[in-house]
Amino acid sequence: MSDHDLVVRGGTVVTAADTFRADIGIRGGRIATIADSLAAGRETIDADGLLVLPGGVDSHCHMDQPPFMGVESADDFLSGSLSAACGGNTTIMPFAMVLRDEPLRPAVEAYREKARGKAVIDYAIHLIVPDADAGRLGQELPPLIDEGYTSFKVFLTYEGLVLEDREMLDVLAMARREGALVMVHAENEHCIHWLTERLVASGRTSPEFHAAARPAAAEREATHRAIALAEIADAPILLVHVSAGEAMEQIEWAQDRGLRVYGETCPQYLFLSDADLARPGFEGAKYMCSPPPRAADNQEALWRGLRQGIFQVYSSDHAPYRFESDRGKKHHGDNPPFHKVPPGVPGIETRLPLLFSEGVGKGRLNLNRFVALTATNAARLYGVYPRKGTIAVGGDADLALWDPGRTVTIRHADLHDNMDYSPYEGMEVTGWPVTTISRGEVVVREAEPVCEPGRGRFLACGRPDSARPV
Amino acid sequence: MSDHDLVVRGGTVVTAADTFRADIGIRGGRIATIADSLAAGRETIDADGLLVLPGGVDSHCHMDQPPFMGVESADDFLSGSLSAACGGNTTIMPFAMVLRDEPLRPAVEAYREKARGKAVIDYAIHLIVPDADAGRLGQELPPLIDEGYTSFKVFLTYEGLVLEDREMLDVLAMARREGALVMVHAENEHCIHWLTERLVASGRTSPEFHAAARPAAAEREATHRAIALAEIADAPILLVHVSAGEAMEQIEWAQDRGLRVYGETCPQYLFLSDADLARPGFEGAKYMCSPPPRAADNQEALWRGLRQGIFQVYSSDHAPYRFESDRGKKHHGDNPPFHKVPPGVPGIETRLPLLFSEGVGKGRLNLNRFVALTATNAARLYGVYPRKGTIAVGGDADLALWDPGRTVTIRHADLHDNMDYSPYEGMEVTGWPVTTISRGEVVVREAEPVCEPGRGRFLACGRPDSARPV
Amino acid sequence: MSDHDLVVRGGTVVTAADTFRADIGIRGGRIATIADSLAAGRETIDADGLLVLPGGVDSHCHMDQPPFMGVESADDFLSGSLSAACGGNTTIMPFAMVLRDEPLRPAVEAYREKARGKAVIDYAIHLIVPDADAGRLGQELPPLIDEGYTSFKVFLTYEGLVLEDREMLDVLAMARREGALVMVHAENEHCIHWLTERLVASGRTSPEFHAAARPAAAEREATHRAIALAEIADAPILLVHVSAGEAMEQIEWAQDRGLRVYGETCPQYLFLSDADLARPGFEGAKYMCSPPPRAADNQEALWRGLRQGIFQVYSSDHAPYRFESDRGKKHHGDNPPFHKVPPGVPGIETRLPLLFSEGVGKGRLNLNRFVALTATNAARLYGVYPRKGTIAVGGDADLALWDPGRTVTIRHADLHDNMDYSPYEGMEVTGWPVTTISRGEVVVREAEPVCEPGRGRFLACGRPDSARPV
Amino acid sequence: MSDHDLVVRGGTVVTAADTFRADIGIRGGRIATIADSLAAGRETIDADGLLVLPGGVDSHCHMDQPPFMGVESADDFLSGSLSAACGGNTTIMPFAMVLRDEPLRPAVEAYREKARGKAVIDYAIHLIVPDADAGRLGQELPPLIDEGYTSFKVFLTYEGLVLEDREMLDVLAMARREGALVMVHAENEHCIHWLTERLVASGRTSPEFHAAARPAAAEREATHRAIALAEIADAPILLVHVSAGEAMEQIEWAQDRGLRVYGETCPQYLFLSDADLARPGFEGAKYMCSPPPRAADNQEALWRGLRQGIFQVYSSDHAPYRFESDRGKKHHGDNPPFHKVPPGVPGIETRLPLLFSEGVGKGRLNLNRFVALTATNAARLYGVYPRKGTIAVGGDADLALWDPGRTVTIRHADLHDNMDYSPYEGMEVTGWPVTTISRGEVVVREAEPVCEPGRGRFLACGRPDSARPV
Repeated sequence: MSDHDLVVRGGTVVTAADTFRADIGIRGGRIATIADSLAAGRETIDADGLLVLPGGVDSHCHMDQPPFMGVESADDFLSGSLSAACGGNTTIMPFAMVLRDEPLRPAVEAYREKARGKAVIDYAIHLIVPDADAGRLGQELPPLIDEGYTSFKVFLTYEGLVLEDREMLDVLAMARREGALVMVHAENEHCIHWLTERLVASGRTSPEFHAAARPAAAEREATHRAIALAEIADAPILLVHVSAGEAMEQIEWAQDRGLRVYGETCPQYLFLSDADLARPGFEGAKYMCSPPPRAADNQEALWRGLRQGIFQVYSSDHAPYRFESDRGKKHHGDNPPFHKVPPGVPGIETRLPLLFSEGVGKGRLNLNRFVALTATNAARLYGVYPRKGTIAVGGDADLALWDPGRTVTIRHADLHDNMDYSPYEGMEVTGWPVTTISRGEVVVREAEPVCEPGRGRFLACGRPDSARPV
Repeated sequence: MSDHDLVVRGGTVVTAADTFRADIGIRGGRIATIADSLAAGRETIDADGLLVLPGGVDSHCHMDQPPFMGVESADDFLSGSLSAACGGNTTIMPFAMVLRDEPLRPAVEAYREKARGKAVIDYAIHLIVPDADAGRLGQELPPLIDEGYTSFKVFLTYEGLVLEDREMLDVLAMARREGALVMVHAENEHCIHWLTERLVASGRTSPEFHAAARPAAAEREATHRAIALAEIADAPILLVHVSAGEAMEQIEWAQDRGLRVYGETCPQYLFLSDADLARPGFEGAKYMCSPPPRAADNQEALWRGLRQGIFQVYSSDHAPYRFESDRGKKHHGDNPPFHKVPPGVPGIETRLPLLFSEGVGKGRLNLNRFVALTATNAARLYGVYPRKGTIAVGGDADLALWDPGRTVTIRHADLHDNMDYSPYEGMEVTGWPVTTISRGEVVVREAEPVCEPGRGRFLACGRPDSARPV
Repeated sequence: MSDHDLVVRGGTVVTAADTFRADIGIRGGRIATIADSLAAGRETIDADGLLVLPGGVDSHCHMDQPPFMGVESADDFLSGSLSAACGGNTTIMPFAMVLRDEPLRPAVEAYREKARGKAVIDYAIHLIVPDADAGRLGQELPPLIDEGYTSFKVFLTYEGLVLEDREMLDVLAMARREGALVMVHAENEHCIHWLTERLVASGRTSPEFHAAARPAAAEREATHRAIALAEIADAPILLVHVSAGEAMEQIEWAQDRGLRVYGETCPQYLFLSDADLARPGFEGAKYMCSPPPRAADNQEALWRGLRQGIFQVYSSDHAPYRFESDRGKKHHGDNPPFHKVPPGVPGIETRLPLLFSEGVGKGRLNLNRFVALTATNAARLYGVYPRKGTIAVGGDADLALWDPGRTVTIRHADLHDNMDYSPYEGMEVTGWPVTTISRGEVVVREAEPVCEPGRGRFLACGRPDSARPV
Repeated sequence: MSDHDLVVRGGTVVTAADTFRADIGIRGGRIATIADSLAAGRETIDADGLLVLPGGVDSHCHMDQPPFMGVESADDFLSGSLSAACGGNTTIMPFAMVLRDEPLRPAVEAYREKARGKAVIDYAIHLIVPDADAGRLGQELPPLIDEGYTSFKVFLTYEGLVLEDREMLDVLAMARREGALVMVHAENEHCIHWLTERLVASGRTSPEFHAAARPAAAEREATHRAIALAEIADAPILLVHVSAGEAMEQIEWAQDRGLRVYGETCPQYLFLSDADLARPGFEGAKYMCSPPPRAADNQEALWRGLRQGIFQVYSSDHAPYRFESDRGKKHHGDNPPFHKVPPGVPGIETRLPLLFSEGVGKGRLNLNRFVALTATNAARLYGVYPRKGTIAVGGDADLALWDPGRTVTIRHADLHDNMDYSPYEGMEVTGWPVTTISRGEVVVREAEPVCEPGRGRFLACGRPDSARPV
């Protein structure tokens, strides 16, 4: 018997670059040994016929955010992290929410408190920066960054969150100085507000008009603007949840010029379309998120972005608002106008299987690119690499064992979140994560959770710059 | 003798499409006859060896605007229009200035009054739209548009003028409804303000930092944004005084997609560069305008835009602030910081000779494209075609007779404006407009003005849409 | 009565730049006067309510070429030019055909002979250059160019015609030296031959496989190659009958770089598609031409090329091979394999009405662009401007009077060629040329020919360079 | 003591994706264990402070090719492989040369014989396919591919090697059927021949005219053509030694469309320029290779290609023709015309240090990208992955230990090839491979070779398709 707490034997190990047969020996929650043949450990898992992947890093998801205008997150850190783990993830990165003029530290502490006793896998926390006053940028943020909150999201849309360009520049300059990473929700608030007024005034209020109110041009504009501001402030940015191919092209243009501009897309933009928003009655609300899914032929552009590395990150943007709930999608009535429906779709558990099946399975992506997009790149960009995001000696033993041949029909009834629907209901996928290991501990076995609530730990992120990709 | 008031004989007539030998017979101020051979008229001009071009339409120039923060326009309608006429122009289009919350009609009437008794050639007047309140857009503007003020400029920079995106959308929607044309000064005010603060705080205040404070990225951003807003509002726009090649590329992209997006550039971006701004001492202030001249290698991109029709219009943006004057460039002292220097360069008289010499003379543009860029396209875009902007039967007899071989060294002392310098001092050009004819009347003869102040008339513009190019 | 042979009164005159109401006075076959009001001439035509356009220049068409492998041109110079005139054209430019090693002069003389006594409108003649031996380029061609044969077509496909790259370079260098223009049929012969062999070997021989044998990639490749060769030889070229959007993009790329590369497209690529080739049975052969019509969604790219000036020329490439004829499409049997069907479609009479209706009528092109594409640009590029291609004093009085409101359903039975079908049978167009005037003589009146065979004259073309557009 | 033949302790391991501290245990020439801490092996190397990289795979180099027109390879397999090993490489891939109509098998066998007893590291062998006759493609090649010669180079230039397009299509179709990879030397032979004739005829024969004879347009054309042919044959291709940014853009375009088109560039295009070719006298011949180094500002485009993954491979194209030798550059005299000088530059030992210093050291590339470009991607593309090209359990223990801080001035006197100059003489680089390990055996220690001639083994390559990147 080898001196390992756990040995994973006989699997095919996959990293963002390599694919090879090896045994993995784990000690003290970390990967101690990768070898051609290891004696059994205190525990041994047979991974013969399975792929051994780094556990997914879902670097953009929402859970247990404070109620906002009466709308509630259905998932807390327990159901949210459990669902993530069952979907092959070992790290999640939700957001500590604040609005304009609210202090960050209490919000962060309250959010840390919510995770305690609940999270089953490790979590980092992004901040929200809803304004740019001097105290915020000069006094409040720097110590938080030092404590491991090294990334924050800013908004070019949403009342109470939207930053003016001058504020954006101040935030970017601070991020540059402090070595933090700015994530941008890029949609032009003015355009959306203006279009919404006109749509509502003319009675076009069903879910399908959510797409008309947030057109690709409004996303493209804000994306181009964010890039120009980052260029002027000389700071890196990550455009999150990119939906429109023409927004992605702005990112590509910036990368061609050598700017440090990164991109993220999500399953809802690859596997849903505006046709879903136009489903009869209020059904379309199940597919409402911001930015919205675009026309079906837009999906091909995003696949190109994943294949060519225009996108570094593929996240769920899991936003758990129930459909049949007066504190969810129907908070403003049974059939509220689109602008009264909280935007967001769930997907923390289905994120990886969908990309595996449609991406790897259908030849659009190879396995290594899959690992890069779902784990390694996010870990690097957010400063938790190489502890997270890969399979390397010294890193946390965060693994997902995939059965590449298992075929599953997605049923919300089988998922582990606390939602009441999945937008992917009925889709058949091939490839499923059957075992999830977090810091050397099996948390999901045979696709069923086997872990203690609260075992997940907070991840203090390092300066992303130290690991920035070129 | 033929029944013509004036016959121009033996010249080579040039339009935006054609070049041919013909005599031109003028009656009642209009072109009555174009023929292979006309008998002498009451007056006859020998144009043998000369090119007979449509008089230039300088569709973007400033003169006799009300003093603004103590700074004064050196040119009034007399010196301004005289200088224009001596430069081969027969139509000018200056702006009736207002600031946020000021009413338009009194400003327009006061401005019409200033022209009266002074202008020596015809003039249309653009409006400024500095805000988007309901009365402005709903009550004030529509009758003015009906009266022939069919184009207006909006600003994405300058305090007191800058429109928010939502205001832009309202203005664009109004323009679409009324059939008016929106001209956009596209630079991002937030970026400029933010950079200026930093430059000034660090003592970088000499004229060369004017360029650093208004970088290409800020122009590109605002250009992209204006295009996106116009796309959403489904209205045509004209980006004026485009300086950066990368801003031009946004226009090109929009045109490739079939959007009605037009572009204008100016001599200062083709013949000056940021090296001029960096001339020793305060000398660089002579070359300061907004947006600023860019790096010398940017000029090639603009020439491509002129050649390929990305730009439809080439105007002077003549802005007559004297250099040695406490009510001009030195209003804030002998060596004021760049942000206290009124931006703008003169050029109403040199606009055409510079493009003729460097464009036609050096083989970058053919003569017909020269006519299109300097006269025909502007007349079409602003709704005064075919009365202005071409040589066609029925149109006003507005002609410039060019001696294509005359070589002139530009000296401010020889120009007819009321400025105290020319940024093109010392440049040698080949080709000069020796005779200018306005509505059949010789206003410049042998390069010297021979006209009565006040003979110029106001042009009520038609709806630009009726003549819009495809 | 005025001293004019013919006066066209009251029409709206259109050139490539201008649109204006004027009367036109014609003397000695030339335009003598354009005036606001002319007294009647010896003959007077009332053009009230009509558009007066330059007669079309169909600069790429085939008629009475010598039989080739048993296949015969259905149209000779009489039926061909008559059909052209009825379609609003006043100039045609067919080809004097030779194969490798055949001398040019006898072919040209024989071809001139064929025109004599037959042509009803004026004609220039392009040469074919099927090889590049020293005598051809050094002795034979220069005097022919001096005599007015200043353009010639070269082929990158077709056995017996195809030039090797080195030969292309020699031809281009000669054209540069002599000031002639090279027209290129750009399809990669090797690819076509290779694909044809495989298609035929596997029994895929119906007309639809004509498109598979000549894919867009083969056209794009040859286009890129021709451009590179022209760049190296520093000679202008015109890519004729461009079919694929991706081939057009090569031309656009070259123009962006400032190369003198021009493009032509044809009705068959705007109004037909590969779906027509796939019509049941042998019917698809009616739509076979080389390069083939592409997928329907390719048409939009070509419209962009016409709108933005990537294409300068729109010609018919009229190639009159009858459908029901053992000397036409069925020369090799009733249902021959695609590679035994002579490629080519007729269209000399329908070229202009189709573009007028679908282009001008549907708002894709304005009238001036229509004139440029159908007459002026070709006249300039081939050195017959300003005698042909515009309405200008001194030029030939070649006019087409269009009734913009006349709606016509295209029926081959109503056309004047000698073919037995039209690929546009049944299409409804709005706008029709009702009167055609050639050198001041009415040759088509009320849409019926009224002219003497043989009245057309040979046009000796000048050096195209002298009129080259920038 | 651990059961390892060799343990490399304390280094920082780098793969194409990961960077981490680990010990590496080697057994039987393969990597047996990667662990946080390994006991000493039979031999132990202290890698503290060093980077442990996969040994470089120089997948494009020349040595001991048969004399061609009197010109001789200065390096045989001994000096060539020794120089490679001293430069941090553990795999080389030279070419078995044949000309049109010569049989492949004897050439391969003779070449294998040359390696025997000499090579100090492992080698695969590319074939040359100089024609496409049926026996070659049908009988000769398939068994060779089965035996591990799975890649071959074809030429679009060089007499005796150049393939016609139809031959290219046949070769590509065969490669597709057999799962082999086609490498393309893309320059247009016709253009080069034509230009050379003219340059020579006009006496422009010094080395600088080598660049004029092989312009970027000729490379771009052949690149575009090769891509089109591969697209038609539906086969992957690798464009080797890409020199011009505009050729690279063709590859980028193909990749954007999803075609399997790969690219390679070389040090001579990143670190030399046409200014080197223009050095006084015959000195420029030291920098002559085909395609030639381009203008200095072209280098930036290539860096973008390396950074963004347009290029997968960076090789030396080491071509060892001595400068001062009548069997090398001066075979045709002391100052022969450029077309009599054998093209090629040495660089097998300096390839990696140059890229490390200028790429990684100057922040243009990160370390993982360096590994991908210099080892992993080539191993994958040529079918020797994961045995070669990475550091993974089960793979060959081919390692290069780099001292990232060692500064070296390149002097040919210090290199280990058999040449008489280096084109990089005098350049200072930081970072040097101090120890090279091949299959667990130290072959270079402290930058000095310590190995037996002939220890290198032949690598039979697998089908590249099996490992093809997406």
